[in-house]
Amino acid sequence: MKFFEGYRCSRCSMEIPAGSVAGECPACAAPLLAVYDLGGLRRVVQREEFFSRHGGVWRFRHLLPTFGREVTLGEGSTPLIRARRLGARLGIERLYIKNEALNPTGSFKARGMAVAVTRLLDIGVREACMPSAGNAGLALSAYGAAAGIRCRIYLPDGTPAGMAEECRLYGTDVVRVPGSIADAGARLDAEAGAERAGVVSTFREPCRVEGKKTIGFEIACEIDSPSAPWVLFPTGGGTGIVAIWKAYTELETLGWLRGAKPRLAVVQSKGCAPIVRAFKAGEGEVAPWKEPETIAAGIRVPGSRAGALILAALRESEGTAVAVADADLMGAVREIASCEGVFAAPEGAATWAGCKALVGDGTIDRSDTVILVNTACGSRYRFLLEDR
Amino acid sequence: MKFFEGYRCSRCSMEIPAGSVAGECPACAAPLLAVYDLGGLRRVVQREEFFSRHGGVWRFRHLLPTFGREVTLGEGSTPLIRARRLGARLGIERLYIKNEALNPTGSFKARGMAVAVTRLLDIGVREACMPSAGNAGLALSAYGAAAGIRCRIYLPDGTPAGMAEECRLYGTDVVRVPGSIADAGARLDAEAGAERAGVVSTFREPCRVEGKKTIGFEIACEIDSPSAPWVLFPTGGGTGIVAIWKAYTELETLGWLRGAKPRLAVVQSKGCAPIVRAFKAGEGEVAPWKEPETIAAGIRVPGSRAGALILAALRESEGTAVAVADADLMGAVREIASCEGVFAAPEGAATWAGCKALVGDGTIDRSDTVILVNTACGSRYRFLLEDR
Repeated sequence: MKFFEGYRCSRCSMEIPAGSVAGECPACAAPLLAVYDLGGLRRVVQREEFFSRHGGVWRFRHLLPTFGREVTLGEGSTPLIRARRLGARLGIERLYIKNEALNPTGSFKARGMAVAVTRLLDIGVREACMPSAGNAGLALSAYGAAAGIRCRIYLPDGTPAGMAEECRLYGTDVVRVPGSIADAGARLDAEAGAERAGVVSTFREPCRVEGKKTIGFEIACEIDSPSAPWVLFPTGGGTGIVAIWKAYTELETLGWLRGAKPRLAVVQSKGCAPIVRAFKAGEGEVAPWKEPETIAAGIRVPGSRAGALILAALRESEGTAVAVADADLMGAVREIASCEGVFAAPEGAATWAGCKALVGDGTIDRSDTVILVNTACGSRYRFLLEDR
Repeated sequence: MKFFEGYRCSRCSMEIPAGSVAGECPACAAPLLAVYDLGGLRRVVQREEFFSRHGGVWRFRHLLPTFGREVTLGEGSTPLIRARRLGARLGIERLYIKNEALNPTGSFKARGMAVAVTRLLDIGVREACMPSAGNAGLALSAYGAAAGIRCRIYLPDGTPAGMAEECRLYGTDVVRVPGSIADAGARLDAEAGAERAGVVSTFREPCRVEGKKTIGFEIACEIDSPSAPWVLFPTGGGTGIVAIWKAYTELETLGWLRGAKPRLAVVQSKGCAPIVRAFKAGEGEVAPWKEPETIAAGIRVPGSRAGALILAALRESEGTAVAVADADLMGAVREIASCEGVFAAPEGAATWAGCKALVGDGTIDRSDTVILVNTACGSRYRFLLEDR
């Protein structure tokens, strides 16, 4: 049974067929979002069946674009760890860490790439390229290798040194670019040319959001409290936020939600906080941040192609956005590791710094359920510990 | 329902009660093995129930020592990847990689430590110590942090530099020791003194084997071919081999095996191959290897406290033991990464080098099902790539 119907432009609502090679709206270049026959799905599949399957991202295939061969390296089904010792420090009884470090190549990027690379195979594209702050590049490299797809990654300055080397190990071509990931993206645009169909950059490829949606499905499966849980997400391009909100919206439409929808909180660094700034100013779009600066490479992203979608998700969810100081990140890494046995990436640890700030100003109540999403493994950022 | 009955000495059969603080046989110092009421279990639990549960190592709790609180960081339920592209290079159609890198702290050591640290909590021990080649130390550090247990790790020379630092991040005391892991163990013996009950060294603690047994349960759940599959395991202290064989033996006794038991293959480095030497010489025990030398830190283990158990498992399973050259390891790492998208540790990649040797000499037939166990993530050994 197939319920995937195709894509729809998030801005102009133009419809794009399922087999299209287009990665963004051909009319207005806005992000495409996958569309499903939810009515048909509800008639055929029970909620219990949807949630009862084993096996990571693809267990949710009824709400994923379905193709012939599903590329997988064992992504998804990451643990939601009850963080009692960490929670006690702030008086939060129900604190959780969704540990995305346990994905292939050590980050949540694996979920999106499993589905994106599966799509590339389906539409017959055998070369892929993308700018990356590191973890997305690792994920594309690994899934590309598994699928026999040739990859080229544009890595900006500030990407941890070993990541380029690790990408090359998988057979990927790596191009180092001075500046931020926006500059890396511009370089790709200048060079990509004929490979257009293989661009899998954030929000220029519609299936990465779909893969990441499964984080939302997994949380909804485990947390079904009647009061809204907070989900704190370190945010660069914003795929995670858009994906989790899309997951909950689909579940709600299906009548499959048991608990409340979450309140989403974007966490950024004070040195690069375009979404926080736009949210607080009540804007409807995200303007680029000049001279982005943070040690958390994964969120050194000066803008987003999906600013409107991110801001809408924050407002619809009665969420918020908070910026934290770089100076607090490595302390947060140490606190999470020593209390919970989880070595978070600096951007993952930013959610704990953000949690403190939001409890401090009363936004989060100590009786709330709070989920910190650690998007990546800290191991590759170990060099940051040496500075102390 | 509780089916765990206690421990039995693997040499003199002395019985030790479940709540004992003894980690090895008080009479003869041989390894203890956990014992279960398999008859009782079979009467109460169905095979399908045993295998149908979700959730990593603890889903097999009917065949694990059960205590009050189960410590977990999301270990187990790692992917068994169908390695088509890699297999095609050797003409093996059914080649798989059991990717243990997707465990917490990036190695199969997490499975054992989840259960061992759970046991420490149960018997009231709040300090733990151990020698380690790196990955076991990371795992103990993380689980110790999560459980509030103070840890001390003795790391030998040759342990990748960052591992000590990473252990310290979790709050662990790290002692660097010149020599091999055997020297680190001797140093622990000289210093441990009053902390005796918290020694979790390989085969001086009975629950690490139990946790690792779940690799066997997972493989048995997925591979049920009537002809015996090969399981190639990079072997240092030998817990993995003993554990997998114990898993299959228990399943067989329960009548829960669908397919054939596996043929086990120990893979070691030519620079440190005490088990291979003993196996080929028909010995019943493993004599220590002098001057162990290999870049694969995880298998630079000159001896084993469970030599008799390992050799028995190899012979009972009609298995084998093979030594591979260090010079072939990094090439194997590159081959696995570029074909399958898996960055294996050098010892994990040794299984692929070993597979080539065993196909080459006719021990493994190309029509056999072959499972390579990648015990750890390659990321922390990235420095080895720089040598080329």
